[in-house]
Amino acid sequence: MPVILDAKRGDIGSTAEQYAHEAFVRYAADAVTLSPFMGFDSIEPYLRYADKGVILLCRTSNPGGSDLQAQVLASGDLVYEHIARMAQGPWNKTGQVALVVGATYPAEIERVRAIAPTLPLLIPGIGAQGGDAAATVRAGWRAVDGVTVAPIIVSSSRAVLYAGSGDDFAAAARQAAMSARDELNRARS
Amino acid sequence: MPVILDAKRGDIGSTAEQYAHEAFVRYAADAVTLSPFMGFDSIEPYLRYADKGVILLCRTSNPGGSDLQAQVLASGDLVYEHIARMAQGPWNKTGQVALVVGATYPAEIERVRAIAPTLPLLIPGIGAQGGDAAATVRAGWRAVDGVTVAPIIVSSSRAVLYAGSGDDFAAAARQAAMSARDELNRARS
Repeated sequence: MPVILDAKRGDIGSTAEQYAHEAFVRYAADAVTLSPFMGFDSIEPYLRYADKGVILLCRTSNPGGSDLQAQVLASGDLVYEHIARMAQGPWNKTGQVALVVGATYPAEIERVRAIAPTLPLLIPGIGAQGGDAAATVRAGWRAVDGVTVAPIIVSSSRAVLYAGSGDDFAAAARQAAMSARDELNRARS
Repeated sequence: MPVILDAKRGDIGSTAEQYAHEAFVRYAADAVTLSPFMGFDSIEPYLRYADKGVILLCRTSNPGGSDLQAQVLASGDLVYEHIARMAQGPWNKTGQVALVVGATYPAEIERVRAIAPTLPLLIPGIGAQGGDAAATVRAGWRAVDGVTVAPIIVSSSRAVLYAGSGDDFAAAARQAAMSARDELNRARS
């Protein structure tokens, strides 16, 4: 089971080197989420771990995500589209880059998928944040002859973590996780 | 002595609430650095601590800082100028907001100071990163009749932290800190 450390790190190179060590050595995560705000040299140290992935914030699931990410650039791109373009192209020489796009904005998952046709998308926001599982799969997942060519990783976090608070926790969390999985699988077929 | 936690946090509201508790209660910091990438609702939970400050990344001192922050918006602003405008205006209703602007870009400190004439600026990048102390003071500090009206906080980090590695460390670090302070004071007069 792959482990993603959702730490949203973003710091200058010398600090990024230490955070990369923390994520991949200390915590043995397979991938880590990063903020692209400080640019490529804040991402590059993580890519030196050849078998590990970085997942860049692109269009986040929270309401305030629009404040900066939906600003229009002079090029015509929105800020999040520019990030998707960098991630699909110059920042992804080594094939280790993925993107975070919130399930709360399916139309924007579709825009990101158009710009970055093969990058894995990590999609939080179904469950507690109200994103729609079927719309998410339609917008982000692509398959040819039943084989995935554009993968998505859809996470339900609080709906599972806080499914119960007493003795029922394990059973309630299992139920919430299975129902999210079933909903995603139904949307896929 | 005020304590600034340079954690560069940036996460959705429910997580931000916990990070704010960590910064201000667990670590008892007076202020914390935050990434503005996820927008105002990722910043607001910190402002509920009335006597504490938030310092938003605006124009960071690393070379890759330009990758996103120096993109031109359709409005004519660069991305970092847009952040300065939000920080001076709608995001600062409670007077708790400051900005990070790298000493490595004095012309851009001046742009930020023009947009945000009264916000405190946290300016890293003198010392190891090569920023010029006198240019930093000229670009960012403003006083009227000798009284500061536009404050700056200039930090030298690695030049002090790594001033020595053996028994001489305390003396070497003291020397590096005093010489940075003296340089800044000379520039001020």
